Amino acid sequence: MSVTAAKGFRAAGIAAGIKESGNPDLALVVNDGPRAAAAGVFTSNRVKAAPVLWSEQVLKGGQVTAVVLNSGGANACTGPQGFQDTHATAERVAATLGLNAGEVAVASTGLIGVTLPMDKLLPGVDTAAGALSAHGGEKAAIAIKTTDSVHKTAVAEGEGWAVGGMAKGAGMLAPGLATMLVVLTTDADVPAADLDRALRDATRLTFDRVDSDGCMSTNDTVLLLASGAAGVTPAYAEFADAVRTVCDDLARQLIGDAEGASKDIRIEVVGAAGEDDAVEVGRSIARNNLLKCAIHGEDPNWGRVLSAIGTTSAVFEPDQLNVAINGVWVCKNGSVGEDRDLVDMRYREVKITADLAAGSASAVIWANDLTADYVHENSAYSS
Amino acid sequence: MSVTAAKGFRAAGIAAGIKESGNPDLALVVNDGPRAAAAGVFTSNRVKAAPVLWSEQVLKGGQVTAVVLNSGGANACTGPQGFQDTHATAERVAATLGLNAGEVAVASTGLIGVTLPMDKLLPGVDTAAGALSAHGGEKAAIAIKTTDSVHKTAVAEGEGWAVGGMAKGAGMLAPGLATMLVVLTTDADVPAADLDRALRDATRLTFDRVDSDGCMSTNDTVLLLASGAAGVTPAYAEFADAVRTVCDDLARQLIGDAEGASKDIRIEVVGAAGEDDAVEVGRSIARNNLLKCAIHGEDPNWGRVLSAIGTTSAVFEPDQLNVAINGVWVCKNGSVGEDRDLVDMRYREVKITADLAAGSASAVIWANDLTADYVHENSAYSS
Repeated sequence: MSVTAAKGFRAAGIAAGIKESGNPDLALVVNDGPRAAAAGVFTSNRVKAAPVLWSEQVLKGGQVTAVVLNSGGANACTGPQGFQDTHATAERVAATLGLNAGEVAVASTGLIGVTLPMDKLLPGVDTAAGALSAHGGEKAAIAIKTTDSVHKTAVAEGEGWAVGGMAKGAGMLAPGLATMLVVLTTDADVPAADLDRALRDATRLTFDRVDSDGCMSTNDTVLLLASGAAGVTPAYAEFADAVRTVCDDLARQLIGDAEGASKDIRIEVVGAAGEDDAVEVGRSIARNNLLKCAIHGEDPNWGRVLSAIGTTSAVFEPDQLNVAINGVWVCKNGSVGEDRDLVDMRYREVKITADLAAGSASAVIWANDLTADYVHENSAYSS
Repeated sequence: MSVTAAKGFRAAGIAAGIKESGNPDLALVVNDGPRAAAAGVFTSNRVKAAPVLWSEQVLKGGQVTAVVLNSGGANACTGPQGFQDTHATAERVAATLGLNAGEVAVASTGLIGVTLPMDKLLPGVDTAAGALSAHGGEKAAIAIKTTDSVHKTAVAEGEGWAVGGMAKGAGMLAPGLATMLVVLTTDADVPAADLDRALRDATRLTFDRVDSDGCMSTNDTVLLLASGAAGVTPAYAEFADAVRTVCDDLARQLIGDAEGASKDIRIEVVGAAGEDDAVEVGRSIARNNLLKCAIHGEDPNWGRVLSAIGTTSAVFEPDQLNVAINGVWVCKNGSVGEDRDLVDMRYREVKITADLAAGSASAVIWANDLTADYVHENSAYSS
């Protein structure tokens, strides 16, 4: 499965010694062709990590033959040295595999503001190149984990072709994009422009609608590589649907493994005047710390939903708002609705429906609860 | 001290039985004149509590003779019944004290979405009226507490006149305004227009720059009442300075008592192209959950400061950003600066300086760390 579910790809995941723990920390994904079309989307944070700056340039050519990813260090806010390190990493991959460095994407994840141990990383590239395998997708997915408790892979199959992918991400998850590294591969023969369109359409509705903690990363990278090895060019709609299915699956896995979370919160905003309104309201609800705490405590505190909606510029009248939690309309017309004691919150997934009563647009945002474990994990991360 | 530091005011704080705990929950502040000039600022949340809707109307007349405040229930999202309850409360105060209900402001705080127990509140108004005293300011300050661990009062004295005040607020603290009820009084003889100007100038730089948890309340109310009992009209600048001093003092007390907080974080943004940029950046830093967790863990994780700055629209270049934590410039030119091990974070107050290197404007925002205690307190609040 993972990035080697599609034909024409090899992958590896090894321990280069970047992480002090000795856990796997370097992944390599190689596209053996015959095509090397690619598309990518990156964080909209204006403070971008060196590998993001590098890979954005690489993707402009629409060709990617290899992706090298490391955990154990984000290589963000590392100045000119950081960029040189990313460049050297791509060059090493190119030299080892006989590729053009300008077609090697680089992604990093881990602590911001620390330079990478290149004396370990570069030899690690050679080791990873030697370990490349058409069954290496799983190991690659494991090597990109940071605080993830499980590795994340997904696959969608067409007739004679497939889209597979791996993702990592557990904290600093917020729109534009959620903090994540994602590599998707397909053996379908799809030109770069269509890959780009399918990837943007998919991420807009999946990774961009995940908000674990409102914190936007410096390193988000989502890549889609096509080998053409299946010798099939599916209809665009069919292909885009498969990409979206895999993105949706991986995004849901990210939320399900968010740092310290005990609840996954599905926020559906309906009755909005437009999709932008629905997304703005959904994100405002998703980022309300007080509500996130209440959900953790299995408390259907709909007042906190309304106070979050009230901070937005969406079209609505306060006395027409309706809110349901797990199907119980605890708030009707901006005031007390059905008995809150009817709300059953024992399960991990919690559904909040916010009806703005202002139109027919809607959007779904996924979030998590806020827990003491999140605080613990993030107050100790860099030490 | 408190609201009775200024001459011409009486106050009371009693237990009306609104809170199940039996703790004080009803405060009354009366202006005995000879003047009754007043100004108020209210939450900018579009979902406003009934007492906010009522008091906004009252303040339009620029005259307030009494303020009645209850804890134990916010009377927000309570529909037409909630507004009727607020109206009835003002009427009861007016009837008991022989005042005009249109000059009685009402403020409430507590859980959203629950109607007030009027059978307890209205008799409580009578009890409070009977307990009014020129020394009742302290008791009034105690009666408006919710999750506050201490009551908050402040005073500034001019020549022959004074400004005093009380505040409550511990959670749902965010700009526009921070979740709070504040009543300020003065015996200076100041017309309503000047009160309004002084209050808006002061709150913009104090309560509006406090951000405990990014959550904007439905009930924020800050009132300034002038009795004129001192028979003195100070120079405007002198008066405005006193109002700001009291607001600053109370705002600092709010941050110092924020729910679950173990650190008070003073975020100073310097080198900004304009004050709006400085405030936008300061708030983005103040609301970054990951940074708030790091500060809790005494971890000078400046990368999280940069990732927060990167989400703003302020003028800056990523490779020119500088960040100091407690005076140590851990980030220079967007990259690694002085040794982070030099940062001493043992004390409660933590200073973050973010230099945008884009101009000469600056702003200070106060925030708190994010702790397991905050999660605990807010996952159990309504149950």
